[in-house]
Formats: sequence, structure tokens, C-alpha cells
Amino acid sequence: MSTVLPSPLAGQLNPVPRLLLGPGPGDMHPRVIAAMTTPLLGHLDPQFLLIMAETQEMLRAVFQTRNELTLPISATGSGGMEACLVNLIEPGERVVICTAGYFGDRMVEMARRCGAEVHVEQERWGQTFAADRIRQILQRTRPKLLGIVNAETSTGAWQDISELGPLCREFDTLLLVDCVTSLGCTPVNVDAWQIDAAFSCSQKGLSCPPGLAPMTVGPRAMEAIRRRKTPVRSWYLDLTALHSYWGAERVYHHTAPITMVYALREGLRLVLEEGLDARFARHQRNARALQAGLQALGLRTLADEHCQLPQLHAVVLPEGVNDVQGRKRLLEEFGIEVGGGLGEYKGRVWRIGLMGYNSRPSCVFQVLAALEKVLNDCGFKCSPGSGVAAAEAVYASS
Amino acid sequence: MSTVLPSPLAGQLNPVPRLLLGPGPGDMHPRVIAAMTTPLLGHLDPQFLLIMAETQEMLRAVFQTRNELTLPISATGSGGMEACLVNLIEPGERVVICTAGYFGDRMVEMARRCGAEVHVEQERWGQTFAADRIRQILQRTRPKLLGIVNAETSTGAWQDISELGPLCREFDTLLLVDCVTSLGCTPVNVDAWQIDAAFSCSQKGLSCPPGLAPMTVGPRAMEAIRRRKTPVRSWYLDLTALHSYWGAERVYHHTAPITMVYALREGLRLVLEEGLDARFARHQRNARALQAGLQALGLRTLADEHCQLPQLHAVVLPEGVNDVQGRKRLLEEFGIEVGGGLGEYKGRVWRIGLMGYNSRPSCVFQVLAALEKVLNDCGFKCSPGSGVAAAEAVYASS
Repeated sequence: MSTVLPSPLAGQLNPVPRLLLGPGPGDMHPRVIAAMTTPLLGHLDPQFLLIMAETQEMLRAVFQTRNELTLPISATGSGGMEACLVNLIEPGERVVICTAGYFGDRMVEMARRCGAEVHVEQERWGQTFAADRIRQILQRTRPKLLGIVNAETSTGAWQDISELGPLCREFDTLLLVDCVTSLGCTPVNVDAWQIDAAFSCSQKGLSCPPGLAPMTVGPRAMEAIRRRKTPVRSWYLDLTALHSYWGAERVYHHTAPITMVYALREGLRLVLEEGLDARFARHQRNARALQAGLQALGLRTLADEHCQLPQLHAVVLPEGVNDVQGRKRLLEEFGIEVGGGLGEYKGRVWRIGLMGYNSRPSCVFQVLAALEKVLNDCGFKCSPGSGVAAAEAVYASS
Repeated sequence: MSTVLPSPLAGQLNPVPRLLLGPGPGDMHPRVIAAMTTPLLGHLDPQFLLIMAETQEMLRAVFQTRNELTLPISATGSGGMEACLVNLIEPGERVVICTAGYFGDRMVEMARRCGAEVHVEQERWGQTFAADRIRQILQRTRPKLLGIVNAETSTGAWQDISELGPLCREFDTLLLVDCVTSLGCTPVNVDAWQIDAAFSCSQKGLSCPPGLAPMTVGPRAMEAIRRRKTPVRSWYLDLTALHSYWGAERVYHHTAPITMVYALREGLRLVLEEGLDARFARHQRNARALQAGLQALGLRTLADEHCQLPQLHAVVLPEGVNDVQGRKRLLEEFGIEVGGGLGEYKGRVWRIGLMGYNSRPSCVFQVLAALEKVLNDCGFKCSPGSGVAAAEAVYASS
């Protein structure tokens, strides 16, 4: 019974703080940190059941939906993606995934593992899909489900969803939308856009730590789950069972991640206190300032202007700038994290996120000042102070 | 774009604190709470990669293993169970699950959803399986995998695992052990017992919040994963991909739940600072005091004495004591949560947990004093102060 291996005791946790301006996680809001220090409650304590109900009701408001099945999956955003696919798809069923980036590709991979017959509609990274094209795809393929990404985290491109719901209904197709990088930053109007299922994460627009995947499922998708001929392959992600715990029945399924729910509840309170429209406008304003600064520095972003997300900017690296060394300097000298590129854009873009709490002028100024210094030292000449000045001009005029 | 639904803003989080003496979660250790207030790092930050490595190394010490693939799954304990099963089993393969309680049954259900041909070996709740019987089962069934629960959370029964590893090797069977309620409370000697895969949770013996499932996979199980003919059905729980992120390659898979990893790291530090043997002895001592107190009150527990877990005690309710009302009084008047019964023992037992941080004399005294009061008021006469006095006598003599 005695201990036989040496004890590799680590020291006290004490990392150098960073400013997280990459594709997520962003920094937690201080009130979220405080909420996480609340003592644990049992997962069936009446007080916790009330906290769950409040969290769900606020989540519905943020998703702009009345969907009863609206809850956080006990996993990160990718777990939310898997929960949607594994419940909505049965093996052999046809689905279409529209992909123009890394996270669209992830949905393709997951749908395949669910046993679906997957039709992949590919677009160049940084581009988006027009409604007309989606109509042609649906006409040709007649899938059970169409999956698409609202805010592609690998490219910073915004995909318009607003017309896709009615289109999908015309063809009796379920519309599944990846809102991982949109929720809390740009509008997600689940009911108005007739989205059948959507999922997100906790660590971007909601400024919580990573670990939960808020999601919502509408009546048509619920009906598809009810009509399944085979059990859902995942016990952990079975939405019918999760709904029995989160819904009126309160049947124990798995132990909810209590502290993460506290965090999400606080993150949602912050969103609703600010107001959705004010929050979206704030993201737009800080994005305009950042974009003005980037242009003044002579930089451009990957996505076309009309579909540039306010919360995520994939900056194309100028010739001669070393990706890894540059990001290392940003991290070590300036304490700023930005994201590297993914897939074909690995080494070619830096992804700058201004999400939730971190969409604020001080973040814009810090990252522009640091970029100018690092790029200048790589031989890419930026006019001194030009980035910050351009951002200041935007703030002054709006 | 404008907000159309009313804003259901909840008030500030402010629950009445509880003492969590049920089957888990237990209370967080104060140092775990403090660790969670550490600012976020990015999931690819060199500082976080070091924190991951330290956490893994400490986890190996707590699991008593040198297994390289030792990491926390980004899900609760049930997610760890599913991760093991979905990676180790391919559809159509034969497995045996030994069950003598609710969580054994859960493993049966999950294995079925993985497409396995499941042979269920059932024992009466509260009982355990002798090695001889396991040998007969293996001889008869020759399964790819045998699944069994080390500490059955529904009954408080301890299943001896120490002889099962060599037995399973004899029949070329993988041994999967549910250590959800054992890790950090009673010995889990993965290498010495030749366990091929084991999983646990964060919120019991490790005194962290729920949300992570520490697990470890040995070389024989790794080989079985390598030899799979079909891809793992779950993308999120694919151990090969998770190993690429947690291992030397550091390939991004999903965003790790940073704050939960901070918590786990601190929980593991506390275990190793105390020392495994001292920690197990502490659990035994407090269990002896609790059991002496229960007996003095005229109560008995479900599991046989030789297999009674020190960390969980399923107290059989005396005639005339109303389960729901009694637990409500414990919760509301004494601020103590104990667990109700599951399955056939619903309404018939209360489950008292003394796990990790909460395995301490003050918890023992509080729960005995409260039990005496509540049971007396239900007409079950306990001699005043007898439970606490019996516990005190145990502490005085050891």
C-alpha cells in the first residue's frame, strides 16, 4: 500500500500574467473570477437548481430564443459541437457541412465520426457562403442537416446566417450553427433566424474560463431527436438525458461542473447588464479603432472588409516577419498573447481577438503599440505612433 | 438586430453555504479556491504547457503509475468513463462489466452505446466480486475488456482490485477500473495492480470543483488503441489526439479548461504534500470515528464491514424516518448535505461522504450531532450525545 514512486511536487502556482488578445480564451472579467470563489453547492441542492434555471433563462436571452432546451454542455466548445452532431445525426444520414476554415473542417471530421454521409462544401479560407449558393446545395443534396460556422475563428470571417433558416425549412433540413466565436460579440438571433441548433463556448464573448459549451436546440431539432431509431452513441452528451436534469424533472445525470456554472451565470449577467445592442456596438467601435490602427501600420487582414468580424482579426504578416519569434516577443516583452495561424495560414497570419471584456480601448492601444515595435524591429517600417494615433482618431470621432 | 426578448437578469450570486458531506462534490480546499483566481493563460502559452506537465507528473504519482498517457479529460468523471470505453472498445467487441451498484450499471449502458457486445455480471448491491469469480467469468467469456468499479458510490462498497490485473493478463483482457470515488481517499496502485486504464473525477478525493476526469492508460491499452480498425467515434474524447496535445507534440486539439487545470494542480499538490499513506490513514481514522458514532446511534451501513469504504457510508434509514424530509432538515437547519439513495435504495439510505478535505473530525462531529437530532425528532430514539461521544473515544485512542 505504500508509496513507491517519487513525489514530483510542483511549486505554488504563480504564472506571469498575460493580456489575452488571441482567438480565445480572452481574459476573465474580474466579477467572473470573484463568482468562482463561491463555495460549492451540491448538484441537486435546491439553491443550485435555482442557479441552473437562472443561468438557462439568461442564456436564452443571450441566444435570443425561447427554446426550452437551452443549457451549457459540461465540456468546451468542441464538446458542444459534438453534442449537437451526435444527437441530431444517425449513422448513414446525409449532412452538408459548409466550410471555409479550420472549424468548418472540424465539423466535417466530427460528422464523419458520427457515421453521417458527409457532403463537404468548401470555400476559400476567409470567404463566406452566399444564400443563393446554399439554396443550390440544398436543392442538389437534400440533407437532413446543414452545418455552418457563424464566426470562423481561423480566418476572422463573418458568415451571414440571417437568411439560412427559412431556406433550410424549405428543404426540410435542420440548420446547425457554430456560434463559438460569435455569442456575446456579434448578434446570434436563434429564433428570428430560425436556427434549429446552435452551440458556443464560455471563454470568448462571455469572458469566462474555458470549460462550458452553451447550446440551444429548437422544436424541429427536438422532434428529430425524439424520432431517432438508434440510441445516441454518446451517453455523456445525450441531450434527452441532459434535458431531464436541466429541465423540470431534475433527474440526476452527471455531476454538473458547479464552479463553471457560477462563472457562466456571472458572465451572462454582465452581458445582460450591458445590454446586447450596447455590447455589439462596443465590439464594433473597438474593431474600427483596431482596423484603423492596423491600416495605419500598413497591415491588412485576411477576411474581406464586408465580412470582417469585429471580435477577431487575422492580420497578414508582412514579408520578413518571423511568426514564432514575433509572437514570442509580444508574449515575453509586452505580455500580450495573439494567436498564430492555422492550416494553410500557419506562419502567415496573427489572430488578434477583442472579445467580451477584452474589447476595450486599452487593449487596442496596447496591441497596436506592441505590434509597431515588433514589426519595426523586423525591418517592416511603421511610422512611429501611427497605429495608436489612427485608433485614437476613431475613438475621438465616435 | 435589436434585443426582442425581455432581459431576465438574475441577482448577485449569494447562496447559503453548505457543508458537503454527500457522495460528492465535497467542499473545495481553500487553496484550490485561491488557485482558481489565477489569471488565465492561453492554452498554448509555454507557462501553461509547463503547468500541464507538472499536473500530469503529479497525477502519475497519485495514480501510482509511470503511464505516459495520464491526463485530465475536459469533462466530469462520467466523461472519463466514456473516454476510456469509446477508445478501448470497437463496435462488436465483447466486454464484461461487473456491477454491484448504480455506477457499474452506468458502465454497462455506456459500453452498449459504444457498440460493444456487453456481458453483465451482476452482484447484489453492497456486495463485491471475489477474484475466483472473476477468473470463472474470464474463462467463460474471454472478453477484450473487463470493467469494474473500485469504490461504488451508490453503496459505499470497496472492491479489491489488487489481484485482477494479473488475472486479466492471463486471458489477454484489458482491465478498466472506475476510480471516481477512490482516488485521493483509498489506494489506487495502477502499476502494481497492473490496471490497464483507470479514470476518476476532480470533486471527491481531490477536493476540487467537478469538471475534470483524471485518467491514465497503460501500454497494453495504448496498443489496443493503436490497433483499432475504426476511428474512435468521439472526436472530443479521442485519446490519441488528446495525447498529441498533452504529450510532447503539443498539437492543438480543443481549448483546455485552464482554470479547472489550475484547481486540479493545486488539489494534487495538497495530496502529495500530505503524502498518500498519511492521507489514506486520515480517511481510515475519520471513518472509524464515524462508524463508531453511527453504531452508537443504533445505525448500520449497507456494505459489509470488510468492504466498507472509509470515504463513503451508506447509512440504512431506520423505520419511520422520512428520507426527503430528513435530508431537507439536515440541509436547512444544519447546513449539511448528505446524499439520498440511488436505484433500489432510493428513500432507504443516506450516503455520508468524508472525502479529501472533508475527511476531518469536525465534519464527523457535525454530521453525528445533526443525525441524532433529526432521527430523534422522527421518533427513532438515540441516546443523547452518544454518537459524538463514541467518535471522540475513537480519536482519543488513535
